[in-house]
Amino acid sequence: MSYNTFGHMFRISTWGESHGPAIGCVVDGCPPGISIEAEEIQAHLDKRKPGGSRFVTQRRESDTVEILSGVFPDANGRQVTTGTPISLLIRNEDQRSKDYGEIKDKFRPGHADFTYIAKYGIRDYRGGGRSSARETAMRVAGGAIARKVLGSAIKIRGALVQIGPHKIDRSRWDWASIDTNPFFCPDAQMAGTWTSYLDQIRKAGSSIGAIVEVVAEGVPAGLGAPIYGKLDQDLASAMMSINAVKAVEIGAGMQAAELTGEENADEIRTSKDGQPQFLSNHAGGILGGISTGQPIVCRFAIKPTSSILTPRRTIDVSGNETEIVTKGRHDPCVGIRAVPVGEAMMALVLADHLIRHRGQVGNPTRQE
Amino acid sequence: MSYNTFGHMFRISTWGESHGPAIGCVVDGCPPGISIEAEEIQAHLDKRKPGGSRFVTQRRESDTVEILSGVFPDANGRQVTTGTPISLLIRNEDQRSKDYGEIKDKFRPGHADFTYIAKYGIRDYRGGGRSSARETAMRVAGGAIARKVLGSAIKIRGALVQIGPHKIDRSRWDWASIDTNPFFCPDAQMAGTWTSYLDQIRKAGSSIGAIVEVVAEGVPAGLGAPIYGKLDQDLASAMMSINAVKAVEIGAGMQAAELTGEENADEIRTSKDGQPQFLSNHAGGILGGISTGQPIVCRFAIKPTSSILTPRRTIDVSGNETEIVTKGRHDPCVGIRAVPVGEAMMALVLADHLIRHRGQVGNPTRQE
Amino acid sequence: MSYNTFGHMFRISTWGESHGPAIGCVVDGCPPGISIEAEEIQAHLDKRKPGGSRFVTQRRESDTVEILSGVFPDANGRQVTTGTPISLLIRNEDQRSKDYGEIKDKFRPGHADFTYIAKYGIRDYRGGGRSSARETAMRVAGGAIARKVLGSAIKIRGALVQIGPHKIDRSRWDWASIDTNPFFCPDAQMAGTWTSYLDQIRKAGSSIGAIVEVVAEGVPAGLGAPIYGKLDQDLASAMMSINAVKAVEIGAGMQAAELTGEENADEIRTSKDGQPQFLSNHAGGILGGISTGQPIVCRFAIKPTSSILTPRRTIDVSGNETEIVTKGRHDPCVGIRAVPVGEAMMALVLADHLIRHRGQVGNPTRQE
Amino acid sequence: MSYNTFGHMFRISTWGESHGPAIGCVVDGCPPGISIEAEEIQAHLDKRKPGGSRFVTQRRESDTVEILSGVFPDANGRQVTTGTPISLLIRNEDQRSKDYGEIKDKFRPGHADFTYIAKYGIRDYRGGGRSSARETAMRVAGGAIARKVLGSAIKIRGALVQIGPHKIDRSRWDWASIDTNPFFCPDAQMAGTWTSYLDQIRKAGSSIGAIVEVVAEGVPAGLGAPIYGKLDQDLASAMMSINAVKAVEIGAGMQAAELTGEENADEIRTSKDGQPQFLSNHAGGILGGISTGQPIVCRFAIKPTSSILTPRRTIDVSGNETEIVTKGRHDPCVGIRAVPVGEAMMALVLADHLIRHRGQVGNPTRQE
Repeated sequence: MSYNTFGHMFRISTWGESHGPAIGCVVDGCPPGISIEAEEIQAHLDKRKPGGSRFVTQRRESDTVEILSGVFPDANGRQVTTGTPISLLIRNEDQRSKDYGEIKDKFRPGHADFTYIAKYGIRDYRGGGRSSARETAMRVAGGAIARKVLGSAIKIRGALVQIGPHKIDRSRWDWASIDTNPFFCPDAQMAGTWTSYLDQIRKAGSSIGAIVEVVAEGVPAGLGAPIYGKLDQDLASAMMSINAVKAVEIGAGMQAAELTGEENADEIRTSKDGQPQFLSNHAGGILGGISTGQPIVCRFAIKPTSSILTPRRTIDVSGNETEIVTKGRHDPCVGIRAVPVGEAMMALVLADHLIRHRGQVGNPTRQE
Repeated sequence: MSYNTFGHMFRISTWGESHGPAIGCVVDGCPPGISIEAEEIQAHLDKRKPGGSRFVTQRRESDTVEILSGVFPDANGRQVTTGTPISLLIRNEDQRSKDYGEIKDKFRPGHADFTYIAKYGIRDYRGGGRSSARETAMRVAGGAIARKVLGSAIKIRGALVQIGPHKIDRSRWDWASIDTNPFFCPDAQMAGTWTSYLDQIRKAGSSIGAIVEVVAEGVPAGLGAPIYGKLDQDLASAMMSINAVKAVEIGAGMQAAELTGEENADEIRTSKDGQPQFLSNHAGGILGGISTGQPIVCRFAIKPTSSILTPRRTIDVSGNETEIVTKGRHDPCVGIRAVPVGEAMMALVLADHLIRHRGQVGNPTRQE
Repeated sequence: MSYNTFGHMFRISTWGESHGPAIGCVVDGCPPGISIEAEEIQAHLDKRKPGGSRFVTQRRESDTVEILSGVFPDANGRQVTTGTPISLLIRNEDQRSKDYGEIKDKFRPGHADFTYIAKYGIRDYRGGGRSSARETAMRVAGGAIARKVLGSAIKIRGALVQIGPHKIDRSRWDWASIDTNPFFCPDAQMAGTWTSYLDQIRKAGSSIGAIVEVVAEGVPAGLGAPIYGKLDQDLASAMMSINAVKAVEIGAGMQAAELTGEENADEIRTSKDGQPQFLSNHAGGILGGISTGQPIVCRFAIKPTSSILTPRRTIDVSGNETEIVTKGRHDPCVGIRAVPVGEAMMALVLADHLIRHRGQVGNPTRQE
Repeated sequence: MSYNTFGHMFRISTWGESHGPAIGCVVDGCPPGISIEAEEIQAHLDKRKPGGSRFVTQRRESDTVEILSGVFPDANGRQVTTGTPISLLIRNEDQRSKDYGEIKDKFRPGHADFTYIAKYGIRDYRGGGRSSARETAMRVAGGAIARKVLGSAIKIRGALVQIGPHKIDRSRWDWASIDTNPFFCPDAQMAGTWTSYLDQIRKAGSSIGAIVEVVAEGVPAGLGAPIYGKLDQDLASAMMSINAVKAVEIGAGMQAAELTGEENADEIRTSKDGQPQFLSNHAGGILGGISTGQPIVCRFAIKPTSSILTPRRTIDVSGNETEIVTKGRHDPCVGIRAVPVGEAMMALVLADHLIRHRGQVGNPTRQE
C-alpha cells in the first residue's frame, strides 16, 4: 500500500490539492462488466458536497465528476467497466482569491500545517493543500464504484450518532430519518436538539466533535482473513485515514472493556431456513477478523475542526511565538460530511475483501 | 500487504498454529549492522509468556526463540543484522493431549471457530489453531528487533489502564509501578483492586475486558504521511489486528467527539532551545497523519475471552443447536498479556515509518 | 504492485485509453523539494511523440502534458515537488473518426484483441484502447520526474542497435549520433542502411522488429537487493511490461550461455583514486541483483507491429473464420519510439531502488 | 513485493543462508482444501538436489523438507491446506568446516561478494550466504505447492536446450528424454555431446553457461493483465530473479527483432470443437500480457559460475589488488539445476495470476 493508495486488489489512489487545478482518483482492479454512470457517482458526491446547509462549509463547489477512462458501452449500450483503471476527475472551481499570508507562515494548532513542514520542508498552504477534506470527495466517488461491485444485496448506510455531548437515543433509531435532516441523524428528535446546539457553536465561531456509525448489511460470512488481513483491521485503517478521525470502534468497541465473557459472547441458534443466527452482535459482525454474516457495525470519532474564530497561541515557520485566528468558510461540525465518507470507506474495504476472498477461496456461499 | 505480513518496508510475516510443531516469523527489510542477540528478543517474549501469574493462562511454554538467519558477527564479533531476512522460530512444547471432540464440532460463541469454517471450510481446531493468541509471541519477537532499529532514543512503553469497570487514576500514573504488579498497571493502588476483582472473575470461570495504553516517546516529528500513509492509520491497523481488540484510540480518542475546537487544538510555544513545544497533547502526537514530536499515545480495548465455564448456546458444524462450555487453561483477562503485544506493534509501525521516511525524505531532523 | 502501478516506493500508476478523452498518470512517493517544470517533462515526451518522421505513426498528437498536483513554488519561486502525488494529464486530440467495424469484431493476429476479450469479455476497441502504445507516453512523463530524482550524476541513454537483420557496428558507437537520425541510432553509417530498409518495409505495408539498448552511467554501487528485490529483476519486469517486448537482456544476456567462467568473470583492479575498477562488464553492472557501480546495460527485443496491409487469417468474436487487413496510421518499426520508453523505465527502476536503498541502509556512499 | 517475497496474492517468502542452521520459506495466500504431502514437495526437491551426478556440485545435502504449518487433515484424513501460511523448513547439513579466509576477504569476480559489501557493509561469506543457489531449493518447494493449486490440467515442464555452443536440435525434441539423462535434455543425441563436453569443462576446473526452456501447457486464456500486471512481465521478473540468469525470452524472444509483421503474427482458425486455434506460437502464449490458451514458452540464459580453478585478478575488502582461485564443490554448469527452479517459478507466477484473475473476473472459462 503506497502513501496515496488504499486497498489490496480493489484499489483507489487519490491525488490533488484543495486549491490546485483539480482533484482526482484512479480506481484499479475493478471487475469488468459492471454498469456505472457518472450520475450514480454524482449522487453520492452530492451528499458530501459543501454548501448543503448552514452547518457545513459555505465553499461553493459543484463537484462535478468526470469519468476519463475504464468504461465502455457493452453490447446493450450500457456503459460498463472494462477491468482497466477508472480515472475520475473533479475540477476545483471556488478557489476564492484570498490573502494566505497568515496561514502561509503560521501553524494552525490542531492542523497539519506544522507536521507537513516538519516532514517535507514545503507545503501547498492554500486551503490546506493536500490535507484539505476535499480529498475525501474522491473517496466518496471511489466508494460509489465499490458499491456497484458489491451489488444491491449489500446495503451500506451511515449515521451521525453524537455531536458534542448530545447522543442519539438508539430506541428511536429510524433509518428513514437520515434524509430528513441536515445531519444524517437517525433520531428525528435529536436532530432538533442538534440544530439549536450547532447554531450556537456556529455563531460562536467555534466547532465541535462528533461520532459517525456505519452499518453494512447483507455481507456474506467469510470476508476478511486471520492475522494481518482482518476485515476489522482494514476498517480501522480505512476510517482512521479519514481526516480528523481519532478513534475507531467495531461492535461493542471501547465498551468491550467492561463486558464479561458471558455478556460479550454472541450466542448462536439456527434459523428456520437452516442458517446460523446470532442472538446479539457485540462482535459487530466480525470474529477473528472474518465476517459472520451479521451486520458489520463500525463507529468513529471526529475531532472538531481547528479552524475557529477564537485566537490560539502558536508559532510561525521561523519559530516565533504568535497567535492565530482562522477566518474563512469552515464546518462547525466536520463530522456531518464525514458520514458519506465513512460509508465510502466501508464500501471500499468490502469490495476489496470480496475480490480477495473470491481469488483465494471462490465466491462466498455461506450467509446468515 | 499480504494476509500474514504486516508493514511496508520493514515487514514481519508470521506463521504457525497453536498446536502445530512450531510458530515463527520472518522479519524483512531490516537495516544491516544492528546488533541483536536472541536474549534481547527473549526478554520481551518473557513479558508475554503464559504462566507468569495466576491471572494468565497456565499453559507451560518456555517460548524459547531461535534465530535461524539474517545475522552474522561483525568485525568486532558482535552479532549484527546483515540486511537479509531474519527468521525466528519457537517450537511448541505444551501441546497437552486432550479431547478436542467438543470444540472440534461446536462453534464457541465469540470465537473465530464459525468464521474460519465459513471462510475456508476447514480449520486446525486444536487450541484455536491460527487464531490462537500464541501468534502474538512472534509479534513481540519482531517488535524486539524493531526496537533495535529505532534505537534507544525512542522509548516505547505500555500499560493496562482499565479492567472491567475499574479505571486507573491518571494522577497516580507511575511508570515504575508497571513492573511491580502482574498487570502492567501504572497505578499501584489500582493494582490492588484489580487483584481481588480478577480473583473473583477467575474463580467464577468468567472473563473480563480491558484497555491497554501504549506510549512512544522520543519519536521525531515527520514520521507518517498524508492520506493513506498516516501514522495513526497504521497504528489503528496494527492494534486492531491483535486478537480480541475491538477499538483503537489516538490521543483524545472517542472523547474527541465531546471537545470544542478551542479545547482540542494543542497550542504551540517555542521552548528555550528553540524547539516547538505543544501545551497539550489531545492529538496524541499525530497531526494530519504525521508525528509532531510529542509522545504518541494509543489505546485499545480488548474484549473478554469467550472461553468461559458458563454454558453458552451455540450450534455445531452441521447446524444443530447445542451448548458449549470451554474448559482448559485460559486467561481471565487477555488484556494483560496484550500489553507487550501492543508495545511490539507500536515498535513495528514506527520502524517501518522511519525507514519509509528516510527513503523518501532522508533522515528526520526536526524534533521537539 | 497492482495491475496499473509500477514500482515499490517511487511509483507510477497510469490510466487511459487511446481514444478516450485523456490519458494520465500519478507519480507517488516522490521526494519533496525537487524542481520540475512541465517543459522538462515535455522535452522527453517530444522524443516519443508520433509524427516525428515517416518511420513512425502519422497520428497527430501534440501530447501536451499538464501537471495537476504535487508541485508548489519554493521560497525562491521555483516550482518543486511537495512529496504528495503528482498527477499528469494529456488530452487525446486526434481521435480520427473512422469505421471501427472491422477491428470491433475481428481479432487482429499478434494483437491483444483476443486476449482482452478472453479475460474481460469487453474491451474498448478504438485504437487498441488500453493496449495502445499511447500508454507509454505516461511512462516517459513519469520517467522524466524519475530522472530529476536521480540527479544529473546519473546519465540514462538509449539507442536502437538492430532493425530486422541489420545490427549496428559497435566499434562505430557514438552517442552523439543518436540525435542526428530518426532512429536513435549510435552508428551513423547504419542509420543510412536503416533508412532505405525501412522505406522498403513501409512501402510494402509491412513491419519489422528491433532491439533497443539502454545504458545508465553513474549509478552508485549498492542499489538493488538479493533474491526478489534484484535490480535486474525489476529491469526485466520494467522492460517486459513495454508493449511488444519479447525478451530482456542484462550485460552479456543470451550470449552468457556460450561463455566460460574465465571469460564471463569481470576481473577487478583498484583505480588510481582507490576505487574498484572492473576490467570488463559482462555483468552489465549488476552482480547478485545489486549494482556494481559500472554502467548498467539492458537490451530488449521488440516484435514487429501486427498492424500490416497483408491480409492475415483470423476469427471474429463469434468464432467465425475470416481475414483481416489493418489499415491506418501505424509504425513500420515500433522499436524506434520504444527508445525513450526504455530510458524512462530504467529511470523509474533506478529512482525506486535509490529510495528503497536509502530507506533501509542510508545514502549510497561507495561508487566506482 | 518485498525484498524476499515473490508474488501478489499467492506469495512465497524465502529466508536463510547457505551455511546457517537452516533455510526455509513461507507460502501465503494458498487456497484451502488442497491436498499436499511433504513427499510431493520432496519429489521436486530431489530433482534439484546437489550430488545427483558428476555434473553438479558434490555438496551432500538430503534437503529433507518439513511442513511446519498451514495443513490439517480433512474429513477424509487427507492432509490439506487450510488457507493459512505454509511454513517449510530444510535444515542445512553439509556445512563442511573449511577455511573461509580467502573468500572472507577477497571478492570473487562475477560473484555477489563485492556488491553485498557495497550495499550492506557486512555479509555472511560462508558458502555465499544468502546469495548461494541453496535459496532456490525453497523456490522449488514453493513451486510444488503452486502446482497443486494449478491442478493437473496445467502441465509445466522444463528442459535444458543449450550448453555453451551446443544447442539441441528441436526436430529431435522428446519430453520423454528429459528423465533419461543428467541434463534434463530433450534431445537424447545432444545429451551424449554434452556429456563429453562437460567432462572436459569439469576437468579443466572451468564452467560454462546454458539456456533453459520452460513450457506450460493447459493454461486457460485470460491470465495476466494489461500494462503492469502482464503475465510475461511477471515471468521475466521471476526468471531474472534466479541466480546467474542474464536474459529472459518469451516465445520468439530476441529473434522477434528479425521477424516481419507477416511472419510474427500468429494466425487464428477455429478448431473442430469451436475453440480458437493458433497456427503458430511466436507469441509464446501471451498477447498484450494475457495468456492466449496456447503453451506458454519461456527461455532464460544462465551465466557460468564464477567459481573456477583458474586464478582471476581481483581486490580484497581493503582495496588491495590480489588474485583468487575458488576451490570447493561447485557446478561446472549451474544451468542444469536451474531447470526445476525455472519450472517452479513458472508455477508460482501462474498460481498467482490464476488467483488474481479469479478475484477480479471469476473463474477462467475460455480455453483453447
